[in-house]
Amino acid sequence: MDQATIFTSVVNICLLIALAEIASSINARLNIPRIIGPLATGIIFGPKLLGGLSVFGHPLIEYNELVYVFAEVGAVLLLFGAGLHFTFTDLKQSGITSVTVAVMGVIIPYGLGLAASIILGYDWYVGMIIGGTMAATSIAISLKSLDELGKLGSQEAKIIIGAAVIDDVLALSLASVILTVIVTNAQMTITGIMFSLTRTLIVWLVLTIVSVQAIPRFLDWINKLKDRSGHLIEAAAILVCFGYAAFSGNLGISPFVGAFIAGMAMADSLHIDMIREFILKIEIIFVPLFFVVMGTSVDPNAILHANFLLILVLGVIAVLSKLVGCGVPAAWFTKDRTCGLRVGYGMISRGEIGLVIASIGVTYNILPSEVYTAIILMIFITSLVPPFLLKRSYKEDEKSVIELTVEI
Amino acid sequence: MDQATIFTSVVNICLLIALAEIASSINARLNIPRIIGPLATGIIFGPKLLGGLSVFGHPLIEYNELVYVFAEVGAVLLLFGAGLHFTFTDLKQSGITSVTVAVMGVIIPYGLGLAASIILGYDWYVGMIIGGTMAATSIAISLKSLDELGKLGSQEAKIIIGAAVIDDVLALSLASVILTVIVTNAQMTITGIMFSLTRTLIVWLVLTIVSVQAIPRFLDWINKLKDRSGHLIEAAAILVCFGYAAFSGNLGISPFVGAFIAGMAMADSLHIDMIREFILKIEIIFVPLFFVVMGTSVDPNAILHANFLLILVLGVIAVLSKLVGCGVPAAWFTKDRTCGLRVGYGMISRGEIGLVIASIGVTYNILPSEVYTAIILMIFITSLVPPFLLKRSYKEDEKSVIELTVEI
Repeated sequence: MDQATIFTSVVNICLLIALAEIASSINARLNIPRIIGPLATGIIFGPKLLGGLSVFGHPLIEYNELVYVFAEVGAVLLLFGAGLHFTFTDLKQSGITSVTVAVMGVIIPYGLGLAASIILGYDWYVGMIIGGTMAATSIAISLKSLDELGKLGSQEAKIIIGAAVIDDVLALSLASVILTVIVTNAQMTITGIMFSLTRTLIVWLVLTIVSVQAIPRFLDWINKLKDRSGHLIEAAAILVCFGYAAFSGNLGISPFVGAFIAGMAMADSLHIDMIREFILKIEIIFVPLFFVVMGTSVDPNAILHANFLLILVLGVIAVLSKLVGCGVPAAWFTKDRTCGLRVGYGMISRGEIGLVIASIGVTYNILPSEVYTAIILMIFITSLVPPFLLKRSYKEDEKSVIELTVEI
Repeated sequence: MDQATIFTSVVNICLLIALAEIASSINARLNIPRIIGPLATGIIFGPKLLGGLSVFGHPLIEYNELVYVFAEVGAVLLLFGAGLHFTFTDLKQSGITSVTVAVMGVIIPYGLGLAASIILGYDWYVGMIIGGTMAATSIAISLKSLDELGKLGSQEAKIIIGAAVIDDVLALSLASVILTVIVTNAQMTITGIMFSLTRTLIVWLVLTIVSVQAIPRFLDWINKLKDRSGHLIEAAAILVCFGYAAFSGNLGISPFVGAFIAGMAMADSLHIDMIREFILKIEIIFVPLFFVVMGTSVDPNAILHANFLLILVLGVIAVLSKLVGCGVPAAWFTKDRTCGLRVGYGMISRGEIGLVIASIGVTYNILPSEVYTAIILMIFITSLVPPFLLKRSYKEDEKSVIELTVEI
C-alpha cells in the first residue's frame, strides 16, 4: 500500500467510526441500546446498500482488509475490557444465589435454543451457535434502567451483577467448546462433547489460576522499569491481551476467551485504573468496527424475506428461557417472588458476547443468512424488553404501597 | 488474512511497542532523549539484525503491511497532536522576538544544510531534505532541562516556546515544498521553487484560516448530537485529522501538514481537553511504530561504514546554525547576551518533525543510505547537547552570583 492508499483506508475507517457513533447517539435518545447503532450502520452502509454506492468510481465505503483487522482487534478489546471489570476474587465471592442464577440462566437458554433449532430443522452446528448466542446476558441495559429507577443498590441488582460475571465466563467457555467442535470436526457424540467441554473448562481454569498469579506480578516488575513519562504498563497490557488471544487460539479455545482471561487477571493488579482508562480510549477506534462488520454480514435481502417464524421462536425462547432460568432460582433463594421476577427481567437482554459468539459462526461460514439475521433481531428484541418490564414492575410496587397507605 | 494471521500480526505490533517503550525507559534513565529509544529498537530489531532471526521458521519480527500502516498513522497523529498544543491565537500573539528567532532559526540552518550538502556533492533533492531536517527544532528536551533547573518561567523559556510554534509551521511548510518539488518534478529554477513555496504558503494560510473558523463550529455542532456516554467528539476529531491528511495530500502539500493544521484548528475548540486526552492515549499504540520503522530504514552496515565527514559536518552545522540563527536575534531583542545564548542552546535539538521530513525522503526513495544514517546521528547529537549547555550556563550564573556575594 502506498501512502495515499493508506490514508484513504484510514479515512474510510474514521468515517465508519463516526457513522457508528452518530447512530449510537440517535439510539440512545430513542432509548434503544447503543450497540444497535453500529450494527445498523453496518447494515445500512454495508457493501450491498449505501456503502456500495459508487462515488467517483469508488464505492462510498470500502470494506478492505484493514477494516477486518480493526474489527477483530475490536472484538478482542471488547472481551479484554469486559475482563478488566471482573476480578477472580469477585468470582470466588459470588453468592450461591448468583452462581445458581448464572448457571441455570446459561443452561436453560442454551438447551432450549439448541433444541428449538434442531426441531426447526437446522444442523447441530447451527444449533450450538444459536444456543450460545442465547446464553450470554448483557446487563448494561438493565443496569442503566435500574440506575434510572434508583434501584442499583437493591437485592435484585446485586444478584444480577454477581450472576453476570459467571454468565459471561460460562457463555464464553461454551463458545470455546463450540469453536473446538467446529474446527476439529469432533464427533458429535455426547461423550465427544462432554470431553471437549471438560477439556476447555480445565484449560480455562488452569490458565485463569496461573494468570491471576502471574500477570499482576509481571506488571509490577514492568512498572519498576518504567520512567515517569513512559507508557510501559499500557504497552505490556496490550501485549499480554493479544498474546493471550493468539495463545488461546493455538490451544484451541477461542481467542476471545484468552483476552477475557487476560483482562480478569489484570483486574487484580495495582495498575488497573491506568489500564482501564487506556483500553476505554483505544476501544473508541476499534470496537465500533466489530459491530459494523457484524452488521455488514446481515444480508439486506434476508431482512425483507426474513423467516418470521424463526425470529418469533428465537425471540420468545430468548425471553422466556432467561425469565425461567434466572427468575426461578432467584425467587427460590430470596423467597421473594417479586425479586425473582425482577432478576429474570434484568437478565433477559443479550448483546456483545452473543454477537462475538455469532461472529464465530460467520467466520467459519456455517450460519445460514436467515439464522444470522434472526439472531441479530433476537438480540435487538431482548434488549428492548427489560427496561419496559423493570419500569412496570417498580411502578406496580409504588402503586401497591400507595394503596396500602390509603387503606391504612 | 485469516484470524490467526491477524492475531500474529497484532502481537507482533504489540511486541514492537513494548520493546520501544523499554528502550525509551532505559534512555530516560540515562538522560538520553526518549525518541532515540524506538529508533534504536528499529535498528536493533530491524529485519537485517535481531528482527530477522528465524524462530520456528518465522522471522522474530515481521515487518508486514500492518506495521507500515500503523507507522503512517503514527506520524499523522504525532503532527496532529503537536498541532493540538498550538492555537492560531498563540501564533498571532507571538512576540516579534519569538517570530524573528523562529524565522532566522529556520532560514539559517536550512540554507547552511542545503549549501553544505551541495558542496559535499549531493543532489539538490537530497540537500533540500537535509536542510529541512535541520530546520525543525524539537523543544521537548530543552523544556525538560529548563524545568529541572527551575527556569521554565524565565524570559528565555518564553522566547523558546513562542518560537517553537512558528518554527514547526515553517519547517512543515518547507517540507511541503520539498514534497511538491519532488513529486511534481518541478523545474529546479529559483522561480520554480519560489512559485512552489508561495503556492504552498498560500494554500497553508487559506486552509488554516478557514479551518480555525470552521472546525471548532463543526465540533460544537457535533457535540449537540452527542449523548452522555457517546464518543462522537473523539470520532469527529480523528475523522477531521485523517480527512485533512488525505485532502492536503491531494492538494500536493504534505499529509502531515494537513494533520498539523487540523490539530491547530481544534486547539481553539471548547472540547480540546477531551480530544487531547484521547489522542495522547491512542498515540501510545501508533507513534512508537513510526519511530521504529524510521529505525529499520537505517542500514546497520551504513553505521559501520558511516561517512564520518558527513556526520561531523551535519552535526557541527546543526549546532552552530541554530546557535547563531536563534541566539543572535534573541540577544539583539533582549539586549542580553546570556539570554540570547540560552535561547540558542535551547533551540539546538532536533527531533520528531525532522524525522517526519526525513521520512518523506525515505518514502520517495531519494535519500542515500549514508545520508539517512547521518541525519539520524545528527538528530541524536543535537538532542544530547542542550541539557549539557543549559546546565553549564546556569551554573556559571550561580557561581558569578556567589562570587559577587563574596566580593560584597
